[in-house]
Amino acid sequence: MAAEIPTEFLRGLFLTEDFAAGAGGRDLLAKLSVPEGEVTLVTDEVMARMSGTEHPQGVLALVDAGAVRTAPSGDFPVVFLEDVQDPGNLGTIIRTAEAAGISAIYMTNGCADILSPKVVRSTMGCLFRMPLIRLEGDDFYAEIGRQQKKGQRFVAAALGGTRPYDAIPYDEHTAFLIGNEGNGLSARALALADEETIIPMEGAVESLNAAVAAAILMYEAARQRRL
Amino acid sequence: MAAEIPTEFLRGLFLTEDFAAGAGGRDLLAKLSVPEGEVTLVTDEVMARMSGTEHPQGVLALVDAGAVRTAPSGDFPVVFLEDVQDPGNLGTIIRTAEAAGISAIYMTNGCADILSPKVVRSTMGCLFRMPLIRLEGDDFYAEIGRQQKKGQRFVAAALGGTRPYDAIPYDEHTAFLIGNEGNGLSARALALADEETIIPMEGAVESLNAAVAAAILMYEAARQRRL
Repeated sequence: MAAEIPTEFLRGLFLTEDFAAGAGGRDLLAKLSVPEGEVTLVTDEVMARMSGTEHPQGVLALVDAGAVRTAPSGDFPVVFLEDVQDPGNLGTIIRTAEAAGISAIYMTNGCADILSPKVVRSTMGCLFRMPLIRLEGDDFYAEIGRQQKKGQRFVAAALGGTRPYDAIPYDEHTAFLIGNEGNGLSARALALADEETIIPMEGAVESLNAAVAAAILMYEAARQRRL
Repeated sequence: MAAEIPTEFLRGLFLTEDFAAGAGGRDLLAKLSVPEGEVTLVTDEVMARMSGTEHPQGVLALVDAGAVRTAPSGDFPVVFLEDVQDPGNLGTIIRTAEAAGISAIYMTNGCADILSPKVVRSTMGCLFRMPLIRLEGDDFYAEIGRQQKKGQRFVAAALGGTRPYDAIPYDEHTAFLIGNEGNGLSARALALADEETIIPMEGAVESLNAAVAAAILMYEAARQRRL
């Protein structure tokens, strides 16, 4: 994952002695071309403390927060996240979004902190490739209106939706609206959506995990694009 | 979620005073018809300790582990999980599987404990509805062979797969094979599979989260069934 970091934003690299001596460590140092003064060898104990995990990978990078991209790229659908609070869900959505070819993720400031350790870890390196745009308060909803004027069509994942997600055509003008884990999308967000869609559920399940729902929608768009 | 528990397996119910006095508490007690002696009122503090979470829901049920169903039901695809170790992933797969109409989940004993608090919570009540069959050691692989003799076709999610997941027809004779978060499926499991499939990935993503990969496959089967 450290190899994914844009070099200009790398502020320091910490390696355990074992990791630095191995093939993975040598490859990483060659690839990143870090100035020698910015590489620090630490003991396993120090690494465990620094990383905050029980089984650290032996390498830890200090990265400028400016490394996160904020300009949308490509002409694939975008995703709008309203208050996705669980860091694991947010990280998983970012990782799945890149795999599905999503151009950018817009999020309310009620979403989990993208720089929290759990988000960073669960994105598995996608954090520095996927454009992530965080919008304060009303700006999130104003951005929906701005994009609609340019022809973007907002499809909201909602339990009250009537059209199944796989009956809707998706293209580069599609924006998916995904809501909070416990409460779904707010009335305000739903009122702005061009369409509400439902992911059909068998059995007695009341809702899907937010990252799973987002994955099913994003991959349906990717599937249609490949046809 | 407590309302989902089969009454014959319910061994006790603990409620906070606030929860018991509210509409949710009264409905639950009416629905479950728990004998009076099995209901205990506790303080918020005791509930927090018992539930092990910071924001407990105000109700906690003591359930016999025998409440978990072990007989497959229905004629929809089944899922085989090899060493899915993260409790959140396992719980999310169980919840998504019910929503996608999966008949049963078979798992190695290297999978997370289905009775661990995090699995129980992330299944959101599906734990008592989805048939869950845990197989020790070789039994898991022997079961694959047994089911193949009866006509089941095993489709393995594998990064080395060539046929995209949405180019394969799925039906009630399909079994999905999903592997460990870090290492994917073992060589042994892959050798047994009838087919390896790949979920196409854009960008530089190396793999998908195990629960996301399982969700995409299970929902593709559900989508084909609805056509």
